Amino acid sequence: MSAPRIAIDAMGGDGGASRMVAGAALALARSPDLRFLFVGDEGAISAELGRHEALAAASEVTHAADVITGDDKPGRALRRAKTSSMGVAIAAVKDGRAGAAVSGGNTGALMATAKLALRTMRGIDRPALAALLPSLGHNDVVMLDLGANTDCDARNLIEFALMGAAYARAALDIPRPTVALLNIGTEALKGTDVLKDAAAALREAQLPLEFTGFIEGDRLSRGEVDVIVSDGFSGNIALKTAEGTARFVTDLLRRSFESSFRSKMGFLLSKPALHMLKVHLDPNNHNGAVFLGLNGIVVKSHGGADDKGVANAIGVAAKLVRDDLNRRIAHALADYRATSSNDGAQAIAAQ
Amino acid sequence: MSAPRIAIDAMGGDGGASRMVAGAALALARSPDLRFLFVGDEGAISAELGRHEALAAASEVTHAADVITGDDKPGRALRRAKTSSMGVAIAAVKDGRAGAAVSGGNTGALMATAKLALRTMRGIDRPALAALLPSLGHNDVVMLDLGANTDCDARNLIEFALMGAAYARAALDIPRPTVALLNIGTEALKGTDVLKDAAAALREAQLPLEFTGFIEGDRLSRGEVDVIVSDGFSGNIALKTAEGTARFVTDLLRRSFESSFRSKMGFLLSKPALHMLKVHLDPNNHNGAVFLGLNGIVVKSHGGADDKGVANAIGVAAKLVRDDLNRRIAHALADYRATSSNDGAQAIAAQ
Repeated sequence: MSAPRIAIDAMGGDGGASRMVAGAALALARSPDLRFLFVGDEGAISAELGRHEALAAASEVTHAADVITGDDKPGRALRRAKTSSMGVAIAAVKDGRAGAAVSGGNTGALMATAKLALRTMRGIDRPALAALLPSLGHNDVVMLDLGANTDCDARNLIEFALMGAAYARAALDIPRPTVALLNIGTEALKGTDVLKDAAAALREAQLPLEFTGFIEGDRLSRGEVDVIVSDGFSGNIALKTAEGTARFVTDLLRRSFESSFRSKMGFLLSKPALHMLKVHLDPNNHNGAVFLGLNGIVVKSHGGADDKGVANAIGVAAKLVRDDLNRRIAHALADYRATSSNDGAQAIAAQ
Repeated sequence: MSAPRIAIDAMGGDGGASRMVAGAALALARSPDLRFLFVGDEGAISAELGRHEALAAASEVTHAADVITGDDKPGRALRRAKTSSMGVAIAAVKDGRAGAAVSGGNTGALMATAKLALRTMRGIDRPALAALLPSLGHNDVVMLDLGANTDCDARNLIEFALMGAAYARAALDIPRPTVALLNIGTEALKGTDVLKDAAAALREAQLPLEFTGFIEGDRLSRGEVDVIVSDGFSGNIALKTAEGTARFVTDLLRRSFESSFRSKMGFLLSKPALHMLKVHLDPNNHNGAVFLGLNGIVVKSHGGADDKGVANAIGVAAKLVRDDLNRRIAHALADYRATSSNDGAQAIAAQ
């Protein structure tokens, strides 16, 4: 297929146009066939593009006067969808002028704007936010939903499993991903009725994934499964707790190294090796969460991402365009409908 | 008050009577006024006590033929409450023969057995499981519920806040603890209706605690609040995710140190300092979760705790007996009923 063209909300995120343009320049250096559509304050964007010759040649700029801030509620974002950099970037995906949109704007506003403009895919009740998390295994782990849906029923969780598996096939090149449901125990009788119903349906259905049952919070990073599915509340709690704990441990580690002259020397000797740890845990290296289940690809970049982080989010968007993520999700859904005939799965899917 | 007498379920936990007796011996060395009632296989317990002269002199043994295993469902535990080491240890608390019970048996069985024997305190709808977690702050953080109640309403969360604050006063000596509700954002409009209702009530009520609003998963270990309240599902996910992430980071750290000769040397130099990190993160140093809201003190020890872990769980139990935790909880409840007159809190408390 032709080279992906990525719409960039140049005004979303803490670093503004400067950060988004620099990130795109890095993404272009990595994948020279990429093309960009920057949306936002034309003067600011053009000034930044002036510093990146190759990028300027690969980019167009569309002016948008409004900016959706981190505090803006979804309602305000929706009212400004036609004039905001976020809204116009997403509209470019809808119009086919871009294959995907990337924004560092606030998640709730981005979700609402994307959902209204792109609509959910046929057969999907609710979109979900998915991201790749670091693990001790061979590959990253797909986790969803990370906060788009506070309350979920069994049907939502089954759809998240299908979409998450399609995402793992596209982003991680795993033909038949293993999928688990996040729960507070691994025995079949643990957890809520919603989880038990979803597990029963996933166990019975013939799907292009291997359902492995429940997984507890302490196993998320072990690399034992490829996809971890939860409602958006639990998923957000788990994601943020993992981020906070990683920072907590590295803060303690720093204090330990600073506690004596001897340990400071030890730190200097270990520094190159500890750099590996830093790289592995740096959220910028895992930047780029995807809204799955929309008719179009929208990638959320961390508001505080650095240039490399923005480049990674753009890389995620480009890979999903190239691998035609949404066609894969549609196929997985069609297969599911076709194969889950008279068992419990059908009843739940039809709810 | 007189010295606390602790009933020990000698058969619960992975290490059996040997581990529980050795842990008690360590607890006794730390607090020589403690007294013990060991419950379980009399022959096995007496054999172990033979190795610990001082402990033997401070202990009685009550025989119980049955053992509740890690796989036993709550129903089976309840049916064997009269003959199991777990059930008889809890009965000793009910009868007043012990001030608290400590068990390493499975949480669901322990909760069911303790609830049936001791009943919930007047004014408490549901007991909750609370523990102390490490933080970057001056003191540990009380977190509850950690898995006793999968679904909770606003009234439950308010009661957890009151009980958690009473626990912080008793265990951490904080006169007016700060309390936050775990949520997926800090803005008032975030999260479920249950959380919003609980927050509104806690904000309005006159309580011996300072309600600080919502807290996200990434701030749990920052030491910004003394008590973190959640439903048992989210709390369990957060607790286990934190444990798993701490292990994940330390596993990565080990890999980093082993990656080169130079870093191995760095590790040797840093070893004494890194020991601090290990001590801080060792779950044994935070062992001893408490069921709050029962007419009696029951402490859950990790099934896999080592001698020091068991001693710490016994130390938690002894401190809560000395500080009369349940009287403190009863007072907090009475104050709450008295002061939350015609505001929203009352309506919720009366639900």
